[in-house]
Amino acid sequence: MSLDDIAARQRAFAVAREWGQWHTPKNLVMALSGEVGELTEIFQWLTPEQAAAAYEDPDLRARIDDELADVLLYLVRLADVMGADLVKAAHAKIDRNEHRFPKPAPLTD
Amino acid sequence: MSLDDIAARQRAFAVAREWGQWHTPKNLVMALSGEVGELTEIFQWLTPEQAAAAYEDPDLRARIDDELADVLLYLVRLADVMGADLVKAAHAKIDRNEHRFPKPAPLTD
Amino acid sequence: MSLDDIAARQRAFAVAREWGQWHTPKNLVMALSGEVGELTEIFQWLTPEQAAAAYEDPDLRARIDDELADVLLYLVRLADVMGADLVKAAHAKIDRNEHRFPKPAPLTD
Amino acid sequence: MSLDDIAARQRAFAVAREWGQWHTPKNLVMALSGEVGELTEIFQWLTPEQAAAAYEDPDLRARIDDELADVLLYLVRLADVMGADLVKAAHAKIDRNEHRFPKPAPLTD
Repeated sequence: MSLDDIAARQRAFAVAREWGQWHTPKNLVMALSGEVGELTEIFQWLTPEQAAAAYEDPDLRARIDDELADVLLYLVRLADVMGADLVKAAHAKIDRNEHRFPKPAPLTD
Repeated sequence: MSLDDIAARQRAFAVAREWGQWHTPKNLVMALSGEVGELTEIFQWLTPEQAAAAYEDPDLRARIDDELADVLLYLVRLADVMGADLVKAAHAKIDRNEHRFPKPAPLTD
Repeated sequence: MSLDDIAARQRAFAVAREWGQWHTPKNLVMALSGEVGELTEIFQWLTPEQAAAAYEDPDLRARIDDELADVLLYLVRLADVMGADLVKAAHAKIDRNEHRFPKPAPLTD
Repeated sequence: MSLDDIAARQRAFAVAREWGQWHTPKNLVMALSGEVGELTEIFQWLTPEQAAAAYEDPDLRARIDDELADVLLYLVRLADVMGADLVKAAHAKIDRNEHRFPKPAPLTD
């Protein structure tokens, strides 16, 4: 399963409900931002230790999965309406990061 | 190419640079939020029409791809450190959305 | 009424409930971000025209006031726990903006 | 000095530069969100201890003040273009919070 399948399902979902008219880049960026806000709210009062263990708690895990999904869904939908290739863009960015932050040389004596 | 490849590359990147210590769920949620903020800044002053055409402009396209990539990279990294399955979570969410927002019945006469 | 009164009320509120332990700068930045996400969600699907008229609708007005308040409350609380002077910082920023973006010269013939 | 003074300065600033056309509620919510993203980026990799001490560092203090100011400026501008009273809304919200989260009763023996 890939992001293409997710994009296709969302496209069909929006077409069937005639929601495409609201799925403009500007609106989708805002929706993405709103979902990241909901994800943030899950973690905001947790200590680093609690946050690190949150995903092991069944209730928190369900909430986190739900918000992670919403973030990915709006990100994929945004890329799809613009015609962007998310996976290609991500690999290109890692390439640039590898160049920008070279691996430290191994210590030798 | 899949999200697994991206997760694996980021894991190797973090290990080689000993950055894993900073890649806690709480920190990564904040980093995700910061990148969505940068994506938002690209679109904030654009009219809906300008936003819809933004991706056709080569300079804007490069900036958008860069920010889309950063958002995906931190989202994938966050899921990876917690052990979440982003694609599975997204399909489960679409399933729930299809139940929650049924397709309108076809019009018949 | 000033921001000092709001900061004082929030300080007393947190002390009475022993919530101060959670009101660290990092947590408060996340809480601020979460509230801005909720404000964003009110506007995300509105057209520019609908967004411009939203505050005239009594229901939307109540929701907007509620979220504006939450954003201000966490911003004031964040500044208070760090010892920052929000109003002074804002005036200093406007001063810098006036220098950075000079007024256009009046048109003459 | 109050928020009214800040709102008045920003109004004059926007009028002089004919920027009012871009200062719609939807755009200003996005701008607010972008600035909170920049504030978040300052804190994202800091430990709770580093975050708590960040404001004592002169360089970080200047960056934090700058971002706090930007958040307040867009929040005040957003409220101003809609005709919202931020300070009144904040006090009303504290009133509701005091009702919603009553003070714990003092311990007696």
